[in-house]
Amino acid sequence: MTDVATARRSRITPEREAELYEAVLELLREVGYDALTMDAIAARTRSSKATLYRQWGGKAELVVRAIRYSKPDATGDIDTGSLRGDLHAVVTLEDDCTHERNSALMRGVAMAMHNNPDLREALRAQLVDPELSDFQTVIQRAIDRGEVRADCPALEFMLHMLVGGFATRMLLDDQPPTQAFLTSYIDAVVLPALGVDPTA
Amino acid sequence: MTDVATARRSRITPEREAELYEAVLELLREVGYDALTMDAIAARTRSSKATLYRQWGGKAELVVRAIRYSKPDATGDIDTGSLRGDLHAVVTLEDDCTHERNSALMRGVAMAMHNNPDLREALRAQLVDPELSDFQTVIQRAIDRGEVRADCPALEFMLHMLVGGFATRMLLDDQPPTQAFLTSYIDAVVLPALGVDPTA
Repeated sequence: MTDVATARRSRITPEREAELYEAVLELLREVGYDALTMDAIAARTRSSKATLYRQWGGKAELVVRAIRYSKPDATGDIDTGSLRGDLHAVVTLEDDCTHERNSALMRGVAMAMHNNPDLREALRAQLVDPELSDFQTVIQRAIDRGEVRADCPALEFMLHMLVGGFATRMLLDDQPPTQAFLTSYIDAVVLPALGVDPTA
Repeated sequence: MTDVATARRSRITPEREAELYEAVLELLREVGYDALTMDAIAARTRSSKATLYRQWGGKAELVVRAIRYSKPDATGDIDTGSLRGDLHAVVTLEDDCTHERNSALMRGVAMAMHNNPDLREALRAQLVDPELSDFQTVIQRAIDRGEVRADCPALEFMLHMLVGGFATRMLLDDQPPTQAFLTSYIDAVVLPALGVDPTA
Protein backbone atom coordinates (compact mmCIF):
# COMPACT_ATOMS: atom_id res chain seq x y z
CA MET A 1 0.00 0.00 0.00
CA THR A 2 2.72 2.46 1.00
CA ASP A 3 4.88 1.49 -1.98
CA VAL A 4 2.01 1.94 -4.42
CA ALA A 5 1.15 5.32 -2.86
CA THR A 6 4.78 6.42 -2.98
CA ALA A 7 5.09 5.32 -6.60
CA ARG A 8 1.92 7.22 -7.48
CA ARG A 9 3.09 10.37 -5.70
CA SER A 10 6.53 10.26 -7.27
CA ARG A 11 5.06 11.97 -10.34
CA ILE A 12 4.91 15.26 -8.42
CA THR A 13 7.83 17.17 -6.92
CA PRO A 14 8.44 17.17 -3.13
CA GLU A 15 7.77 20.95 -3.11
CA ARG A 16 4.42 20.45 -4.79
CA GLU A 17 3.58 17.59 -2.42
CA ALA A 18 4.39 19.80 0.60
CA GLU A 19 2.25 22.60 -0.82
CA LEU A 20 -0.68 20.22 -1.27
CA TYR A 21 -0.39 18.87 2.27
CA GLU A 22 -0.25 22.40 3.72
CA ALA A 23 -3.45 23.26 1.87
CA VAL A 24 -5.20 20.11 3.11
CA LEU A 25 -4.20 20.86 6.72
CA GLU A 26 -5.34 24.45 6.39
CA LEU A 27 -8.77 23.36 5.10
CA LEU A 28 -9.01 20.69 7.79
CA ARG A 29 -8.46 23.26 10.54
CA GLU A 30 -10.96 25.61 8.93
CA VAL A 31 -13.90 23.31 8.23
CA GLY A 32 -13.13 19.89 9.78
CA TYR A 33 -12.97 16.53 8.03
CA ASP A 34 -16.62 16.01 7.16
CA ALA A 35 -17.05 19.36 5.43
CA LEU A 36 -13.71 19.04 3.62
CA THR A 37 -14.25 18.14 -0.04
CA MET A 38 -11.87 16.98 -2.74
CA ASP A 39 -13.35 19.85 -4.80
CA ALA A 40 -12.19 22.40 -2.20
CA ILE A 41 -8.71 20.85 -2.07
CA ALA A 42 -8.51 20.85 -5.87
CA ALA A 43 -9.62 24.50 -6.01
CA ARG A 44 -7.24 25.74 -3.33
CA THR A 45 -4.23 23.89 -4.77
CA ARG A 46 -5.14 24.48 -8.42
CA SER A 47 -5.08 20.72 -9.07
CA SER A 48 -7.57 18.54 -10.88
CA LYS A 49 -9.69 16.24 -8.72
CA ALA A 50 -8.67 13.37 -10.99
CA THR A 51 -5.02 13.98 -10.10
CA LEU A 52 -5.79 13.97 -6.37
CA TYR A 53 -7.72 10.69 -6.59
CA ARG A 54 -5.06 9.11 -8.81
CA GLN A 55 -2.24 10.06 -6.46
CA TRP A 56 -3.86 9.45 -3.06
CA GLY A 57 -6.84 7.21 -3.67
CA GLY A 58 -9.26 9.21 -1.52
CA LYS A 59 -9.92 11.80 1.15
CA ALA A 60 -8.97 9.66 4.19
CA GLU A 61 -5.59 8.67 2.71
CA LEU A 62 -4.80 12.23 1.62
CA VAL A 63 -5.74 13.69 5.03
CA VAL A 64 -3.73 11.14 7.04
CA ARG A 65 -0.68 11.61 4.77
CA ALA A 66 -0.97 15.38 5.27
CA ILE A 67 -1.16 15.03 9.08
CA ARG A 68 1.75 12.61 9.09
CA TYR A 69 3.79 14.95 6.92
CA SER A 70 3.24 17.73 9.49
CA LYS A 71 4.58 15.71 12.46
CA PRO A 72 8.25 15.78 13.42
CA ASP A 73 9.63 12.23 13.29
CA ALA A 74 12.07 12.68 16.13
CA THR A 75 10.32 11.37 19.29
CA GLY A 76 12.05 8.00 19.02
CA ASP A 77 15.49 9.64 18.77
CA ILE A 78 15.11 11.66 21.97
CA ASP A 79 17.47 10.42 24.69
CA THR A 80 18.39 13.07 27.27
CA GLY A 81 19.27 10.66 30.08
CA SER A 82 16.13 11.21 32.21
CA LEU A 83 12.41 10.65 31.69
CA ARG A 84 11.66 14.23 32.65
CA GLY A 85 14.19 15.49 30.10
CA ASP A 86 12.80 13.17 27.41
CA LEU A 87 9.16 14.19 27.97
CA HIS A 88 10.01 17.89 28.06
CA ALA A 89 11.97 17.38 24.83
CA VAL A 90 8.91 15.74 23.21
CA VAL A 91 6.70 18.78 23.86
CA THR A 92 9.39 21.26 22.81
CA LEU A 93 9.98 19.50 19.46
CA GLU A 94 7.21 21.76 18.18
CA ASP A 95 6.87 25.48 18.85
CA ASP A 96 3.74 27.05 20.35
CA CYS A 97 2.42 28.10 16.99
CA THR A 98 2.59 24.48 15.79
CA HIS A 99 0.98 23.21 19.03
CA GLU A 100 -1.91 25.60 18.43
CA ARG A 101 -2.32 24.46 14.83
CA ASN A 102 -2.20 20.79 15.92
CA SER A 103 -4.85 21.46 18.51
CA ALA A 104 -7.15 22.87 15.79
CA LEU A 105 -6.33 19.85 13.63
CA MET A 106 -7.30 17.43 16.37
CA ARG A 107 -10.67 19.14 16.83
CA GLY A 108 -11.10 18.90 13.06
CA VAL A 109 -10.75 15.12 12.97
CA ALA A 110 -12.03 14.00 16.41
CA MET A 111 -15.71 14.07 15.44
CA ALA A 112 -15.07 12.63 11.99
CA MET A 113 -13.02 9.68 13.31
CA HIS A 114 -16.07 8.25 14.94
CA ASN A 115 -18.20 8.30 11.78
CA ASN A 116 -15.47 7.30 9.31
CA PRO A 117 -13.97 3.87 10.00
CA ASP A 118 -11.49 4.26 7.11
CA LEU A 119 -10.15 7.52 8.57
CA ARG A 120 -10.01 5.96 12.05
CA GLU A 121 -8.04 2.95 10.86
CA ALA A 122 -5.62 5.05 8.81
CA LEU A 123 -5.02 7.41 11.75
CA ARG A 124 -4.46 4.52 14.12
CA ALA A 125 -2.09 2.66 11.81
CA GLN A 126 -0.12 5.68 10.62
CA LEU A 127 -0.17 7.99 13.65
CA VAL A 128 -1.34 6.50 16.97
CA ASP A 129 0.59 3.21 16.72
CA PRO A 130 3.93 4.79 15.64
CA GLU A 131 3.54 7.43 18.40
CA LEU A 132 2.87 4.72 20.97
CA SER A 133 5.89 2.77 19.81
CA ASP A 134 8.12 5.88 20.10
CA PHE A 135 6.86 6.44 23.65
CA GLN A 136 7.54 2.81 24.48
CA THR A 137 11.20 3.34 23.54
CA VAL A 138 11.39 6.40 25.82
CA ILE A 139 9.63 4.52 28.65
CA GLN A 140 11.71 1.37 28.28
CA ARG A 141 14.86 3.42 28.79
CA ALA A 142 13.30 4.96 31.95
CA ILE A 143 12.52 1.44 33.23
CA ASP A 144 16.06 0.26 32.39
CA ARG A 145 17.50 3.24 34.30
CA GLY A 146 15.32 2.30 37.31
CA GLU A 147 13.28 5.54 37.13
CA VAL A 148 9.93 3.82 36.57
CA ARG A 149 8.78 0.41 37.79
CA ALA A 150 7.95 -1.97 34.94
CA ASP A 151 4.60 -2.77 36.58
CA CYS A 152 3.55 0.86 37.19
CA PRO A 153 -0.21 0.99 36.44
CA ALA A 154 0.06 4.47 34.83
CA LEU A 155 2.22 3.07 31.99
CA GLU A 156 -0.78 1.81 30.08
CA PHE A 157 -2.26 5.33 30.13
CA MET A 158 0.78 7.24 28.78
CA LEU A 159 -0.98 8.50 25.66
CA HIS A 160 -4.27 9.13 27.52
CA MET A 161 -2.42 11.39 29.96
CA LEU A 162 -0.39 13.25 27.33
CA VAL A 163 -3.03 13.54 24.61
CA GLY A 164 -5.64 14.31 27.30
CA GLY A 165 -3.71 17.30 28.64
CA PHE A 166 -3.13 18.54 25.11
CA ALA A 167 -6.73 18.07 23.97
CA THR A 168 -8.47 19.51 27.03
CA ARG A 169 -6.41 22.72 27.33
CA MET A 170 -8.47 24.64 24.76
CA LEU A 171 -11.71 22.95 25.76
CA LEU A 172 -11.41 23.83 29.46
CA ASP A 173 -9.29 26.99 29.51
CA ASP A 174 -9.93 28.58 26.13
CA GLN A 175 -6.17 28.73 25.58
CA PRO A 176 -3.93 26.78 23.23
CA PRO A 177 -1.65 24.05 24.68
CA THR A 178 1.70 25.85 24.86
CA GLN A 179 5.09 24.36 25.70
CA ALA A 180 4.84 26.06 29.12
CA PHE A 181 1.44 24.47 29.83
CA LEU A 182 2.53 21.04 28.62
CA THR A 183 5.77 20.99 30.64
CA SER A 184 3.87 22.07 33.81
CA TYR A 185 1.31 19.34 33.15
CA ILE A 186 4.08 16.74 32.68
CA ASP A 187 5.71 17.78 35.98
CA ALA A 188 2.42 17.97 37.91
CA VAL A 189 0.55 14.96 36.49
CA VAL A 190 2.48 12.60 34.20
CA LEU A 191 5.72 12.18 36.18
CA PRO A 192 4.04 11.83 39.63
CA ALA A 193 1.56 9.31 38.16
CA LEU A 194 4.58 7.30 36.97
CA GLY A 195 6.16 7.54 40.43
CA VAL A 196 8.90 9.95 39.25
CA ASP A 197 9.71 12.96 41.42
CA PRO A 198 9.95 15.93 39.01
CA THR A 199 12.11 17.89 41.46
CA ALA A 200 14.69 15.11 41.90
CA MET B 1 -31.27 35.46 32.03
CA THR B 2 -32.11 32.17 33.74
CA ASP B 3 -35.34 33.58 35.14
CA VAL B 4 -36.43 34.89 31.75
CA ALA B 5 -35.59 31.56 30.13
CA THR B 6 -37.46 29.67 32.84
CA ALA B 7 -40.47 31.93 32.50
CA ARG B 8 -40.47 31.45 28.75
CA ARG B 9 -40.16 27.68 29.05
CA SER B 10 -42.90 27.45 31.64
CA ARG B 11 -45.43 27.50 28.80
CA ILE B 12 -44.54 23.91 27.96
CA THR B 13 -44.89 20.86 30.22
CA PRO B 14 -41.80 19.28 31.84
CA GLU B 15 -42.47 16.10 29.81
CA ARG B 16 -42.48 18.06 26.57
CA GLU B 17 -39.32 19.92 27.61
CA ALA B 18 -37.55 16.61 28.34
CA GLU B 19 -38.68 15.24 24.98
CA LEU B 20 -37.30 18.30 23.20
CA TYR B 21 -33.94 18.07 24.98
CA GLU B 22 -33.63 14.37 24.15
CA ALA B 23 -34.22 15.16 20.47
CA VAL B 24 -31.60 17.95 20.52
CA LEU B 25 -29.02 15.63 22.13
CA GLU B 26 -29.79 12.89 19.65
CA LEU B 27 -29.27 15.25 16.70
CA LEU B 28 -26.12 16.65 18.28
CA ARG B 29 -24.59 13.19 18.57
CA GLU B 30 -25.61 12.38 15.01
CA VAL B 31 -24.45 15.47 13.12
CA GLY B 32 -22.52 17.72 15.54
CA TYR B 33 -23.23 21.31 16.48
CA ASP B 34 -22.43 23.08 13.23
CA ALA B 35 -24.64 20.88 11.07
CA LEU B 36 -27.48 20.96 13.61
CA THR B 37 -30.26 23.28 12.44
CA MET B 38 -33.29 24.69 14.21
CA ASP B 39 -35.25 23.32 11.21
CA ALA B 40 -34.08 19.78 11.99
CA ILE B 41 -34.97 20.17 15.67
CA ALA B 42 -38.39 21.56 14.75
CA ALA B 43 -39.00 18.69 12.33
CA ARG B 44 -37.92 15.94 14.71
CA THR B 45 -39.90 17.33 17.64
CA ARG B 46 -42.90 18.43 15.57
CA SER B 47 -42.54 22.00 16.92
CA SER B 48 -42.56 25.28 15.05
CA LYS B 49 -39.23 27.04 14.69
CA ALA B 50 -40.88 30.19 16.05
CA THR B 51 -41.71 28.34 19.28
CA LEU B 52 -38.12 27.14 19.67
CA TYR B 53 -36.71 30.63 19.17
CA ARG B 54 -39.31 32.18 21.49
CA GLN B 55 -38.62 29.70 24.27
CA TRP B 56 -34.82 29.37 24.05
CA GLY B 57 -33.58 32.37 22.13
CA GLY B 58 -31.24 30.43 19.84
CA LYS B 59 -29.30 27.29 19.04
CA ALA B 60 -26.45 27.78 21.55
CA GLU B 61 -28.83 28.31 24.47
CA LEU B 62 -31.05 25.37 23.48
CA VAL B 63 -28.04 23.04 23.07
CA VAL B 64 -26.43 24.00 26.38
CA ARG B 65 -29.77 23.63 28.23
CA ALA B 66 -30.18 20.20 26.66
CA ILE B 67 -26.67 19.10 27.71
CA ARG B 68 -27.18 20.46 31.19
CA TYR B 69 -30.52 18.68 31.47
CA SER B 70 -28.75 15.39 30.68
CA LYS B 71 -26.16 15.69 33.46
CA PRO B 72 -26.78 14.32 36.93
CA ASP B 73 -26.52 17.14 39.47
CA ALA B 74 -25.13 15.01 42.24
CA THR B 75 -21.31 15.42 42.11
CA GLY B 76 -21.36 18.06 44.84
CA ASP B 77 -23.38 15.79 47.16
CA ILE B 78 -20.94 12.89 46.96
CA ASP B 79 -19.18 12.31 50.29
CA THR B 80 -17.98 8.75 50.82
CA GLY B 81 -15.23 9.58 53.32
CA SER B 82 -12.25 9.09 50.96
CA LEU B 83 -11.08 10.77 47.75
CA ARG B 84 -10.87 7.42 45.98
CA GLY B 85 -14.44 6.63 47.03
CA ASP B 86 -15.63 10.06 45.92
CA LEU B 87 -13.96 9.92 42.48
CA HIS B 88 -15.20 6.37 41.84
CA ALA B 89 -18.67 7.55 42.83
CA VAL B 90 -18.46 10.42 40.33
CA VAL B 91 -17.81 8.07 37.40
CA THR B 92 -20.44 5.56 38.50
CA LEU B 93 -23.15 8.25 38.73
CA GLU B 94 -23.77 7.47 35.07
CA ASP B 95 -24.01 4.01 33.53
CA ASP B 96 -21.85 2.86 30.60
CA CYS B 97 -24.54 3.56 28.09
CA THR B 98 -24.72 7.18 29.28
CA HIS B 99 -20.91 7.50 29.29
CA GLU B 100 -20.89 6.35 25.65
CA ARG B 101 -23.60 8.87 24.71
CA ASN B 102 -21.73 11.67 26.54
CA SER B 103 -18.55 10.79 24.69
CA ALA B 104 -20.39 11.19 21.36
CA LEU B 105 -21.84 14.47 22.62
CA MET B 106 -18.40 15.82 23.49
CA ARG B 107 -17.11 15.01 20.02
CA GLY B 108 -20.18 16.78 18.65
CA VAL B 109 -19.44 20.08 20.40
CA ALA B 110 -15.61 20.09 20.68
CA MET B 111 -14.99 21.35 17.13
CA ALA B 112 -17.90 23.80 17.28
CA MET B 113 -16.80 25.37 20.58
CA HIS B 114 -13.78 26.83 18.92
CA ASN B 115 -15.71 28.54 16.13
CA ASN B 116 -18.71 29.65 18.20
CA PRO B 117 -17.81 32.02 21.05
CA ASP B 118 -21.45 32.13 22.25
CA LEU B 119 -21.55 28.33 22.58
CA ARG B 120 -18.15 28.34 24.29
CA GLU B 121 -19.19 30.93 26.84
CA ALA B 122 -22.50 29.22 27.56
CA LEU B 123 -20.79 25.85 28.02
CA ARG B 124 -18.16 27.35 30.29
CA ALA B 125 -20.66 29.25 32.44
CA GLN B 126 -23.26 26.50 32.66
CA LEU B 127 -21.19 23.32 32.58
CA VAL B 128 -17.43 23.67 33.08
CA ASP B 129 -17.55 26.17 35.98
CA PRO B 130 -20.24 24.32 37.99
CA GLU B 131 -18.36 21.03 37.41
CA LEU B 132 -15.12 22.62 38.61
CA SER B 133 -16.83 23.99 41.67
CA ASP B 134 -18.30 20.55 42.52
CA PHE B 135 -14.82 19.04 42.21
CA GLN B 136 -13.40 21.73 44.43
CA THR B 137 -15.83 20.67 47.17
CA VAL B 138 -14.71 17.05 46.83
CA ILE B 139 -11.02 18.09 46.80
CA GLN B 140 -11.35 20.47 49.74
CA ARG B 141 -12.69 17.62 51.86
CA ALA B 142 -9.71 15.47 50.81
CA ILE B 143 -7.35 18.29 51.83
CA ASP B 144 -9.19 18.71 55.15
CA ARG B 145 -8.87 14.98 55.82
CA GLY B 146 -5.11 15.24 55.11
CA GLU B 147 -5.30 12.97 52.04
CA VAL B 148 -4.02 15.59 49.61
CA ARG B 149 -1.58 18.45 50.25
CA ALA B 150 -3.12 21.86 49.63
CA ASP B 151 -0.13 22.82 47.44
CA CYS B 152 -0.14 19.65 45.32
CA PRO B 153 0.67 20.81 41.74
CA ALA B 154 -1.76 18.28 40.19
CA LEU B 155 -4.73 20.04 41.82
CA GLU B 156 -4.91 22.69 39.12
CA PHE B 157 -5.18 19.93 36.49
CA MET B 158 -8.09 17.97 38.05
CA LEU B 159 -10.45 18.50 35.12
CA HIS B 160 -7.68 18.09 32.52
CA MET B 161 -6.86 14.68 33.98
CA LEU B 162 -10.46 13.51 34.29
CA VAL B 163 -11.88 14.97 31.08
CA GLY B 164 -8.68 13.95 29.27
CA GLY B 165 -9.06 10.27 30.20
CA PHE B 166 -12.71 10.38 29.23
CA ALA B 167 -12.14 12.18 25.91
CA THR B 168 -9.14 10.17 24.71
CA ARG B 169 -10.53 6.67 25.36
CA MET B 170 -12.48 6.52 22.09
CA LEU B 171 -9.85 8.48 20.17
CA LEU B 172 -6.97 6.20 21.15
CA ASP B 173 -8.59 2.83 21.81
CA ASP B 174 -11.72 2.89 19.68
CA GLN B 175 -13.73 1.97 22.77
CA PRO B 176 -16.20 4.02 24.81
CA PRO B 177 -15.13 5.29 28.26
CA THR B 178 -16.76 2.74 30.57
CA GLN B 179 -17.01 2.84 34.38
CA ALA B 180 -14.34 0.09 34.46
CA PHE B 181 -11.94 2.11 32.28
CA LEU B 182 -12.54 5.33 34.23
CA THR B 183 -12.06 3.75 37.67
CA SER B 184 -8.79 2.08 36.48
CA TYR B 185 -7.64 5.42 35.10
CA ILE B 186 -8.46 7.17 38.40
CA ASP B 187 -6.50 4.56 40.37
CA ALA B 188 -3.53 4.53 37.95
CA VAL B 189 -3.26 8.22 37.08
CA VAL B 190 -5.42 10.68 39.02
CA LEU B 191 -4.85 9.46 42.59
CA PRO B 192 -1.06 8.87 42.22
CA ALA B 193 -0.71 12.33 40.59
CA LEU B 194 -2.43 13.77 43.68
CA GLY B 195 -0.08 11.80 45.96
CA VAL B 196 -2.85 9.42 47.10
CA ASP B 197 -2.04 5.69 47.28
CA PRO B 198 -5.04 3.94 45.67
CA THR B 199 -4.28 0.68 47.51
CA ALA B 200 -4.19 2.30 50.96
